[in-house]
Amino acid sequence: MKKIAVIMGSDSDLPVVEKAISTLAEYGVPYEVHVFSAHRTPEEARAFSTSARENGFGAIIAAAGMAAHLAGAIAANTTLPVIGIPVKSKYLDGIDALLSTVQMPGGIPVATVAIDGAVNAALLSIQMLAIEDSSLAKKLDNARLAGKEKVLAKNDDIEARFNH
Amino acid sequence: MKKIAVIMGSDSDLPVVEKAISTLAEYGVPYEVHVFSAHRTPEEARAFSTSARENGFGAIIAAAGMAAHLAGAIAANTTLPVIGIPVKSKYLDGIDALLSTVQMPGGIPVATVAIDGAVNAALLSIQMLAIEDSSLAKKLDNARLAGKEKVLAKNDDIEARFNH
Amino acid sequence: MKKIAVIMGSDSDLPVVEKAISTLAEYGVPYEVHVFSAHRTPEEARAFSTSARENGFGAIIAAAGMAAHLAGAIAANTTLPVIGIPVKSKYLDGIDALLSTVQMPGGIPVATVAIDGAVNAALLSIQMLAIEDSSLAKKLDNARLAGKEKVLAKNDDIEARFNH
Amino acid sequence: MKKIAVIMGSDSDLPVVEKAISTLAEYGVPYEVHVFSAHRTPEEARAFSTSARENGFGAIIAAAGMAAHLAGAIAANTTLPVIGIPVKSKYLDGIDALLSTVQMPGGIPVATVAIDGAVNAALLSIQMLAIEDSSLAKKLDNARLAGKEKVLAKNDDIEARFNH
Amino acid sequence: MKKIAVIMGSDSDLPVVEKAISTLAEYGVPYEVHVFSAHRTPEEARAFSTSARENGFGAIIAAAGMAAHLAGAIAANTTLPVIGIPVKSKYLDGIDALLSTVQMPGGIPVATVAIDGAVNAALLSIQMLAIEDSSLAKKLDNARLAGKEKVLAKNDDIEARFNH
Amino acid sequence: MKKIAVIMGSDSDLPVVEKAISTLAEYGVPYEVHVFSAHRTPEEARAFSTSARENGFGAIIAAAGMAAHLAGAIAANTTLPVIGIPVKSKYLDGIDALLSTVQMPGGIPVATVAIDGAVNAALLSIQMLAIEDSSLAKKLDNARLAGKEKVLAKNDDIEARFNH
Amino acid sequence: MKKIAVIMGSDSDLPVVEKAISTLAEYGVPYEVHVFSAHRTPEEARAFSTSARENGFGAIIAAAGMAAHLAGAIAANTTLPVIGIPVKSKYLDGIDALLSTVQMPGGIPVATVAIDGAVNAALLSIQMLAIEDSSLAKKLDNARLAGKEKVLAKNDDIEARFNH
Amino acid sequence: MKKIAVIMGSDSDLPVVEKAISTLAEYGVPYEVHVFSAHRTPEEARAFSTSARENGFGAIIAAAGMAAHLAGAIAANTTLPVIGIPVKSKYLDGIDALLSTVQMPGGIPVATVAIDGAVNAALLSIQMLAIEDSSLAKKLDNARLAGKEKVLAKNDDIEARFNH
Repeated sequence: MKKIAVIMGSDSDLPVVEKAISTLAEYGVPYEVHVFSAHRTPEEARAFSTSARENGFGAIIAAAGMAAHLAGAIAANTTLPVIGIPVKSKYLDGIDALLSTVQMPGGIPVATVAIDGAVNAALLSIQMLAIEDSSLAKKLDNARLAGKEKVLAKNDDIEARFNH
Repeated sequence: MKKIAVIMGSDSDLPVVEKAISTLAEYGVPYEVHVFSAHRTPEEARAFSTSARENGFGAIIAAAGMAAHLAGAIAANTTLPVIGIPVKSKYLDGIDALLSTVQMPGGIPVATVAIDGAVNAALLSIQMLAIEDSSLAKKLDNARLAGKEKVLAKNDDIEARFNH
Repeated sequence: MKKIAVIMGSDSDLPVVEKAISTLAEYGVPYEVHVFSAHRTPEEARAFSTSARENGFGAIIAAAGMAAHLAGAIAANTTLPVIGIPVKSKYLDGIDALLSTVQMPGGIPVATVAIDGAVNAALLSIQMLAIEDSSLAKKLDNARLAGKEKVLAKNDDIEARFNH
Repeated sequence: MKKIAVIMGSDSDLPVVEKAISTLAEYGVPYEVHVFSAHRTPEEARAFSTSARENGFGAIIAAAGMAAHLAGAIAANTTLPVIGIPVKSKYLDGIDALLSTVQMPGGIPVATVAIDGAVNAALLSIQMLAIEDSSLAKKLDNARLAGKEKVLAKNDDIEARFNH
Repeated sequence: MKKIAVIMGSDSDLPVVEKAISTLAEYGVPYEVHVFSAHRTPEEARAFSTSARENGFGAIIAAAGMAAHLAGAIAANTTLPVIGIPVKSKYLDGIDALLSTVQMPGGIPVATVAIDGAVNAALLSIQMLAIEDSSLAKKLDNARLAGKEKVLAKNDDIEARFNH
Repeated sequence: MKKIAVIMGSDSDLPVVEKAISTLAEYGVPYEVHVFSAHRTPEEARAFSTSARENGFGAIIAAAGMAAHLAGAIAANTTLPVIGIPVKSKYLDGIDALLSTVQMPGGIPVATVAIDGAVNAALLSIQMLAIEDSSLAKKLDNARLAGKEKVLAKNDDIEARFNH
Repeated sequence: MKKIAVIMGSDSDLPVVEKAISTLAEYGVPYEVHVFSAHRTPEEARAFSTSARENGFGAIIAAAGMAAHLAGAIAANTTLPVIGIPVKSKYLDGIDALLSTVQMPGGIPVATVAIDGAVNAALLSIQMLAIEDSSLAKKLDNARLAGKEKVLAKNDDIEARFNH
Repeated sequence: MKKIAVIMGSDSDLPVVEKAISTLAEYGVPYEVHVFSAHRTPEEARAFSTSARENGFGAIIAAAGMAAHLAGAIAANTTLPVIGIPVKSKYLDGIDALLSTVQMPGGIPVATVAIDGAVNAALLSIQMLAIEDSSLAKKLDNARLAGKEKVLAKNDDIEARFNH
């Protein structure tokens, strides 16, 4: 199975990114985690991205805050799908990271998820691998069903509490 | 090869969506185009999404404006990757469509591209198919090179014009 | 009397939604509370909405956060009036939920109240029932007068404290 | 049948408001149209609102731009449901009118629709009347079906054009 | 001397408004404080405003949050200068109150100060009275000088601490 | 009678500012018009402001766009009331000018009107002069009545056109 | 004298960037113009930036729109001062480019000017060179004086037109 | 070596500004710190700015919040490069300060850094001095390398923790 790369721009993004990592682990999808900064270690980011496909990666998740260039910088050096997680920082409630991640020019897409949306970033990468992997698709469908069961159970609780 | 579905919420989105269609055509990726409205034909949207994987689709592109629910509504009914194009409408410069598309809750990802970012939506879907299709990956790399050549040529023009 | 449905997208919305429930209870208006997620239990949301009128509901209140599609998804399946409560989540101060709820396309209205405006959502649903129920209208008028008395009393306190 | 009042803050709002009027006319719902300004003719606005219920109105639609106080000023003087249309003016793309209309304090709801959302304002008022009027509800359902047919027809066109 | 009216839309605005009151007290300017709600006690607000000039007021300060209509509602009923304080509420960081206060239509001005800018609202009202009151103008000038001295003293502290 | 100063930051602001000038002229209030730039002719702006009170001015209107510092820069050099008009420029729809004008720190108020709100700026300055000038107050009241008559006439037109 | 590099992310930015070029030309400051895209020609951008200091550049101006990463990408590869011009594109009025340019993380500064602020970007680069070049500083002072004269002349015009 | 001036608009900005001071100290760059308010001590701000170049300064850093005029007011009185730090205050998350600082009109540039971006403001001023000071440039390059080493070390930690 192809691997998923999880890149964060700074180790301060780890509390957000950890949820992507644990989601990948739950699904048994192989992954690698790295700290590459678009601005502080641009060459490492570039070297990794350029060779990511040949190194067995299927998709790359990149998380960064503020003027969040990481996902775009990685996308500039690979044609693998790149998934961007805009990370909320202390200012502007994450809208700076969201716009810096999603408003990419034509030719260099970044698949952007919600602010701090690490679980969905991981799920999206798994969905990509599952296009040609029916057993992984099955796992996604099962998890979707489990999620549904959880909401149904919550609904039962709420109905029991409020409806007479 | 898996097909790509291109769904628009209204035929008024066609001027934006057409660029996604022509990009898919350029790459020789099979696709289908539909108009399904999350609000006016929700059952058709649901029926299509629920059976999209078994009908040979690899990813779904969904374009909508305003309170843009289409991509999310499709994502709720499939575990295929769903790519959302927020379409600018007459008001609020597209920020309503962007937030309605990207701020999805955990469990139901939508891979969001820039406002009116139809070319990138198509490229992203092709990148997904190319994970396991090295000839498609090659095409993407070639197009990237061609894009680079174009910028280099522009650079030559500008340098010739301004630098002496 | 017609019933009011109070739907929340997640049980985490309950702290907001509870104020709608207690307002309905104060007025003696019959209600039902449910957890239906536009994305996790879309079929349940649809089934409920489609049959809501024949099941004796007069209006539906729907509360959701982030890319808040719940009210719109319900409105797509009924011509009962649907009232949307945009719920503030951890990011963007609720503006994402507000725009996702209010910017509905022509044909599928959602009556949107303020961010976390659960009391007003309940009052609005009661106002709708009161169009043809003069005793309920009387209750609304009395409550309005009581609200006025409260402000007048506060005014008396403040005047006594500051004006000499 | 109860009447619907359509109030605009200025006759410059007429191009927006006309779509509400024609929608009401299509449904055969009786209506009255007025120009009352929350700031220039506040007494007229108040007098109208205070007596609207006894004068046979079932709901009031109020359209205004900028610091759009009209809907709130009307809602302060009646317990009829008040529907607010935020009207886009020359500045700020309508976000000022939207926030001024929707962010009402607890106790005085305004059912807010999209910026310039006059058709939906009318539909919402009709939905309110239809709670106790099954033939009006039937008309709404029929129009919804017609809307659906229109989207399906557009879908047929698009499919015929793009899918082979 | 003319009096200044200080009106708050709710007694929950008092923590903000108190700074206006104490500023007026410091300057020995006569004032009255009231709680009038544009939505809950609109008649009291109107009655007060309509007669404010003949009752010896020179200017009116109005503080309110959310869809902050209070200042505008008062301004609609008097040609005295009305000063609006947009009060930050729990949502949207006060931008809703700012836009609802400042974006008044032509003909009905509201002199708007910063979000929660109660001191400046009071100073502005004093400046208005001081146009024809040179001893009050003198007090304002002296306070300005005192403010300047305070900054100069802070500057001395900072210079002593950091510059060698 | 005290004079009103009308200052614009650039002569490109004249199309907005002219409405303030003509409003002052209508009321027969003496005024002076100047172009002073907070950034290009700061000394002239300062010299004017510092001596404005002794030169017979009662209030100063300042109009500027973008990072609109003019009103604040003038307010820093006088304790006369300063009225700020945020002027919409080519970018950001005037929100930059609005925030730069209104968000003044404690001690230095600027009475801010709507974006491009030149008429209201003039009216506000006249209201200030009218505090101690009952004949000017009378003119304001008459104009308010005339404004009301105009809305009533529009209402008559609309009623005649739509209500039968 | 050190040279100034003027980099644009796309030749579509030229209408904005030209004003920077002509400003540099006016001052007789040597410059070079290039088209380097952070995403399409990242290696060229990097190669240029890495060697810019040794190639005789004193500062780099970078103009880009949307998720404007260019200035940051250049700044990541040089410790020369980098000046960012956020370019307004078709969407969001330039706020995306502004936030993507200015919200740089600690360690990698970008000196950001106003949206489309090309003249100021050039002036800023000249100011940097002028720190150690008193004749260039003199030119800046002279231009400032000339700018002042122009405003004074406009003031004379306006005064002659409006003040009697 | 030229000195750097660090100006704050209020001593309440010191917690932000201190990081600029300590950064300058680390680099051994001479600096002076002052509190000058654009609104409370405008003459001191002006006097300082006007003579800053002749007093041996190479650049000026100015930090202010809300309607942050300080950097612009300084820039109006000198042709030295002025670096603006928008300081987050209690409201609007710093966007008011950012727009007030960056949206300067043509002719008067302010080099704006991120909200509360004091370290980058200092680095930018050092980069300016380093244009003609190769040993300072060397220090910047070394610090950049050290920053890179730190990220690489973090990467090693993260890799050791998550990759097996």
